[in-house]
Amino acid sequence: MLRIKSGKRIYEGVEVQSYDPSLIVIKLNNGYNIGFRRDKVEIERLEDTDGGMQKREREAIGGTYDVSILGTGGTIASYVDYSTGAVHPARSTSELLRFMPEIKSIARVGARVLFSVFSENMRCEHWKRIAQEVKEELDAGAKGVVVTHGTDTLCYTASALAFMLPQIGGPVVLTGAQRSTDRPSSDGFLNLMASTRLALTDLGEVTIAMHAGSSDDSVAVHRATRTRKMHTSARSAFQTIGSAPLGYVRNDGIELTEHRKKADETVIDARMDEGVTLLYFYPGMRTEILDAVTERSSGVVIAGTGLGHVSDDLIESIEACGKPVCIVSQCINGSTNLNVYATGRKLLNAGAIPCADMLPETACVKLMWVLGHTKDRDEVAGLMQRNIAGEICDRRSL
Amino acid sequence: MLRIKSGKRIYEGVEVQSYDPSLIVIKLNNGYNIGFRRDKVEIERLEDTDGGMQKREREAIGGTYDVSILGTGGTIASYVDYSTGAVHPARSTSELLRFMPEIKSIARVGARVLFSVFSENMRCEHWKRIAQEVKEELDAGAKGVVVTHGTDTLCYTASALAFMLPQIGGPVVLTGAQRSTDRPSSDGFLNLMASTRLALTDLGEVTIAMHAGSSDDSVAVHRATRTRKMHTSARSAFQTIGSAPLGYVRNDGIELTEHRKKADETVIDARMDEGVTLLYFYPGMRTEILDAVTERSSGVVIAGTGLGHVSDDLIESIEACGKPVCIVSQCINGSTNLNVYATGRKLLNAGAIPCADMLPETACVKLMWVLGHTKDRDEVAGLMQRNIAGEICDRRSL
Repeated sequence: MLRIKSGKRIYEGVEVQSYDPSLIVIKLNNGYNIGFRRDKVEIERLEDTDGGMQKREREAIGGTYDVSILGTGGTIASYVDYSTGAVHPARSTSELLRFMPEIKSIARVGARVLFSVFSENMRCEHWKRIAQEVKEELDAGAKGVVVTHGTDTLCYTASALAFMLPQIGGPVVLTGAQRSTDRPSSDGFLNLMASTRLALTDLGEVTIAMHAGSSDDSVAVHRATRTRKMHTSARSAFQTIGSAPLGYVRNDGIELTEHRKKADETVIDARMDEGVTLLYFYPGMRTEILDAVTERSSGVVIAGTGLGHVSDDLIESIEACGKPVCIVSQCINGSTNLNVYATGRKLLNAGAIPCADMLPETACVKLMWVLGHTKDRDEVAGLMQRNIAGEICDRRSL
Repeated sequence: MLRIKSGKRIYEGVEVQSYDPSLIVIKLNNGYNIGFRRDKVEIERLEDTDGGMQKREREAIGGTYDVSILGTGGTIASYVDYSTGAVHPARSTSELLRFMPEIKSIARVGARVLFSVFSENMRCEHWKRIAQEVKEELDAGAKGVVVTHGTDTLCYTASALAFMLPQIGGPVVLTGAQRSTDRPSSDGFLNLMASTRLALTDLGEVTIAMHAGSSDDSVAVHRATRTRKMHTSARSAFQTIGSAPLGYVRNDGIELTEHRKKADETVIDARMDEGVTLLYFYPGMRTEILDAVTERSSGVVIAGTGLGHVSDDLIESIEACGKPVCIVSQCINGSTNLNVYATGRKLLNAGAIPCADMLPETACVKLMWVLGHTKDRDEVAGLMQRNIAGEICDRRSL
């Protein structure tokens, strides 16, 4: 923690790495970075606060705390090395929290790094580990859990946790950052603050809390199974599809619509089958490709065109493959309906399982979970078409 | 054409099939349907207008006309059989135009059915046939061409035409209907009227004209290669991604932003390689799946997560496969950038070709076209990264 005197003004904040040695840059409590010429200001090092933070953090981990932050990697726990321009993972969650001294005003926080991976490398084993750790934290007395995660596959992990944790004893909030925390425009600070506040509510659902984009203090709360990362780099990339978000966390309060309330106990059911493949149909997709995929998969999700269509010549392969084939729509918005056109009816006759308005990515994760529980075709169809974790909004087409 | 006297009011329109024999339903000139109890109204059959329309259409086909409408199938040329509830293709384009007598006030129209297929069954051979017919129509003197098409794969066909027709002698407008033309809420009437008007402008690009959704008289004009069907059933499903639409057709006029002007001659270059596969990455995608696909493909487009990432364990397969592997983002919005994270840089080292902000579906069609011209890896990369038909908005990442 530094105190910097520039003319008559005084600024306090945590030092962040500067790309220019003649500049000193600090992150203010409000999350913004500010830079000064070293030769123009007086710099005073405040040892106490920063050390106090780390001491409290250690105490919290050893003792009791309200909100458990579990780090899994990603941009929120990364920093830019200005000498190379590359983004590096932070060495620890405490390093991350060091940039966010304000968090101690919200809750007693315990932080732990489970692993540190780019989220594109996440898979079932990581999802299971997170689910287990979440249960342990809630069972041990945490009021809520925040999972920091890379944004690339954050929605897939959130969906997986929503199916793996059918009942939770406190809010489970996934969050991340589209921009690394040492950048002035970083959303990591805001997202983690909002997630920590959300973790103290009565929410009994797995949610995603990410910058809403509309104003600089607004974080949207999304239902895990209905969210999609809709932009590669914008801070407001995360969107609830098919309805409004579950709510918002703002400076002046938390606003939530109807939601499931937290339960007395946390239940885990993390059996998964990793042999599922997700395929997006495109014109001229060859049966050779579909056959090669179904042969090598325990089940397939096809994101068809429009209401959920594929070309006629693929339908025989779907019928013959003997694996569950689920149908969603690549349109992202709206619902499948295989009863309107001849192609849809042929797909139904071939045994394809329409999944209402489920998102392709959610359907892929859900089929992994369902096939972890049963291989019986009718049971698979029944489970895929049952709304288990808020993944189906529109039931008209079922 | 019928004239119906109900009390003191008189309505004129084309008869549409009624689900209830006691009702008579007509489609008014404004596109809306209205139903009457047969025993409460006076019905007069106006043979002349409808016959005149069909006669003029025949004449136009034999002689000269300004706008050529080429039918390929889809909902816009379909009707609902009220006895079964199923949607059937119209038997001819004249049957379709019969419902739209107002079109003759816009232009001298010639109409032809090329084929009648659900658009999910379209493939390269259909795209080539349409491109050839478009060129023939423009060469023969048509000022513009409207292609009616099923909405499911309309954007893929539009992209294909944009690459296959590098220079056009008049507007080429693709349009369709999300709801069949005998439904009161059909968008087919509005879309075809607007497309016909657009076909008389100086537009030298392949475009898509579909209901804008904002008001009932507004049709958005989209650039072929930047459009995505973003809803399964809404009339405003078609959206330009990454920028505003190219313009709008409204009752009071046509408004277009900067666009390529029509050329003196139409050039066709329709060589395609159908061996391209489009894959969306998901967490845990197995190398076995990717290998099976690359072995069976002449090139692959991978829609990665975020800035264009896949899991580390797939990268060796990408390097070893010896086929061009193009990278786009499954986020739909925003641009790929393989220079920010380690995964991206590994992908670049493995020879993957980042495609800026190109849409996954457009990249798939473009790679078919590029591989129809060269198999040389560097030439493929060069062409994929060159903006040929407006498919790249954001060049920062290249």
